[in-house]
Amino acid sequence: MVRVGVDGRIQEEFLVDFPKDVEIVRIPEGISEPIEIDFWIPPFARKNSQDTFRMLRGVKVVQSILAGVDWILPWLPKDITLCDGQGVHDVMVSEWVLAAILTSLKRFYVYRDQQHRKEWRGAGEPGDTVLHVGEQYQVLGDDLAGKTVLIVGYGSIGKAIEARLKPFEVNVLRIARTARTEPEVSTVGDLHRLLPDADIVVVIVPMTPKTKGMIGIQEIALMKRGALLVNAARGPVVVTEVLVEALEESRIFAALDVTDPEPPPQGHPLWNAPHCIITPHVASSTPALLHRAYRLAADQVRRFAGGEPLQNVVAEDGY
Amino acid sequence: MVRVGVDGRIQEEFLVDFPKDVEIVRIPEGISEPIEIDFWIPPFARKNSQDTFRMLRGVKVVQSILAGVDWILPWLPKDITLCDGQGVHDVMVSEWVLAAILTSLKRFYVYRDQQHRKEWRGAGEPGDTVLHVGEQYQVLGDDLAGKTVLIVGYGSIGKAIEARLKPFEVNVLRIARTARTEPEVSTVGDLHRLLPDADIVVVIVPMTPKTKGMIGIQEIALMKRGALLVNAARGPVVVTEVLVEALEESRIFAALDVTDPEPPPQGHPLWNAPHCIITPHVASSTPALLHRAYRLAADQVRRFAGGEPLQNVVAEDGY
Repeated sequence: MVRVGVDGRIQEEFLVDFPKDVEIVRIPEGISEPIEIDFWIPPFARKNSQDTFRMLRGVKVVQSILAGVDWILPWLPKDITLCDGQGVHDVMVSEWVLAAILTSLKRFYVYRDQQHRKEWRGAGEPGDTVLHVGEQYQVLGDDLAGKTVLIVGYGSIGKAIEARLKPFEVNVLRIARTARTEPEVSTVGDLHRLLPDADIVVVIVPMTPKTKGMIGIQEIALMKRGALLVNAARGPVVVTEVLVEALEESRIFAALDVTDPEPPPQGHPLWNAPHCIITPHVASSTPALLHRAYRLAADQVRRFAGGEPLQNVVAEDGY
Repeated sequence: MVRVGVDGRIQEEFLVDFPKDVEIVRIPEGISEPIEIDFWIPPFARKNSQDTFRMLRGVKVVQSILAGVDWILPWLPKDITLCDGQGVHDVMVSEWVLAAILTSLKRFYVYRDQQHRKEWRGAGEPGDTVLHVGEQYQVLGDDLAGKTVLIVGYGSIGKAIEARLKPFEVNVLRIARTARTEPEVSTVGDLHRLLPDADIVVVIVPMTPKTKGMIGIQEIALMKRGALLVNAARGPVVVTEVLVEALEESRIFAALDVTDPEPPPQGHPLWNAPHCIITPHVASSTPALLHRAYRLAADQVRRFAGGEPLQNVVAEDGY
């Protein structure tokens, strides 16, 4: 009988879709003795995963419920099949990206700060980043309609972002590892050509040695003045010092769910950088997450137990 | 020749679509002598409009570029045709509503406050309004997918809101003055029946004697615990004291572009009410506004000069 190791604290309701002919083995948080399992689903809170793994025996498959696998790939033995959580995070992360774009464009963070000061002001004043509408009308908020959005990392989350952007009358540009048509997807080699056209750049690539530092001094210099950079990938994909400099010069806007270092230490300039909104790596953290994650895991366990090919198998390069 | 009175400060670029065979008359801000015009387009900043109007002679039509006409209806003589800005505000206000919904659900205002405190925390703690995901995971942010959104005031802005909500996998309920089918639109008489089903209530009715106080003690009591009330209409449509009480008891969330009184005076409890985000009546204030407004005005002037029926004519009840 296939033995499936799950988070010791996970509630029964998340396991209802698992096949009945497998043995569910609850792995306690402070595992002290070796446990034999075939298929491991590490907990969402992954910080002690490597310690836990050292006590596991017989593991053939690890199913990550996170979208990225950069936290496990470096130490997981290569003879163990690693599957990622592709698809699980599409809804949550794409909703976060739309929230980030609209909060930034509509300047809800500016108004939140005003609310704390009990200040009611919708028009610009000297020193503000204002948008001029004729000479006499200075507005703070912007339109999403008519903007060009560049999605860097057009995978399943990228597609979910595009679907949600569609009714907003925007022009979408796409970059992925491999070029495609219908819709047109360019490669990373086209990044420098496409950046100057984008009003909004959404970075949603996996963290790999190739994507680390991918948005650096050249890339940020190529962005339009006043463009918005959204990072929903991993902090080190963007070079923090370069980003901070561009923000402090009010050249670009930013919305970040991830930072490098993460979290930024007290006193780090990112905390106070102008027109930069930061959320604490929560794009996926919603009530839907575990339901969607364990639905995928249940399907993968069913495939494994039935000898079928697994989905979302991660190759050595992290894709 | 038809004489069209426009904002004295409006730039030429906004008037390019106006018919060539009309006379454009720029009305100065501090108008001191009577001016003869046939068709008046009051400025977007409407505060001295009544004083200006007293100096105008021969006006047959007033074209408002605001969505609502509650600011002019009470004092405009009934023999003058009043047209509202229906359609002009659809894109801007619907974008604001989506921004308000997502900023609230994803708790970007909570994270903005954390950012100022240099605090990195995505999970709930005692005292937070948290969403439980199983016993062990407490998250702050919520999903839009799966929610039921009630649009109270299903006109052209309401339709634009629904179009933008569509890819988010939500269930939309609609209320307007008259019932319709395909899509199903209920009447205000169904408000009490539909409120308990809604996770998000978007109020976007015009301000009329009938809609004043429409969201009061009964209506807020009928809302789900934890539901979000979005007011993009006018402040007095919602009874402020009732809203404040519900917010202070953490029964509902709110996102307001309008308040009553507007702005709230210093010391008003709305400023500090928990889980209430306020923007200073800016839903329409974006660079697209004047372009869209004067495009409508140009078309109306063309109709008037050509003897064609006007669009968006307001009836006595304010619709």
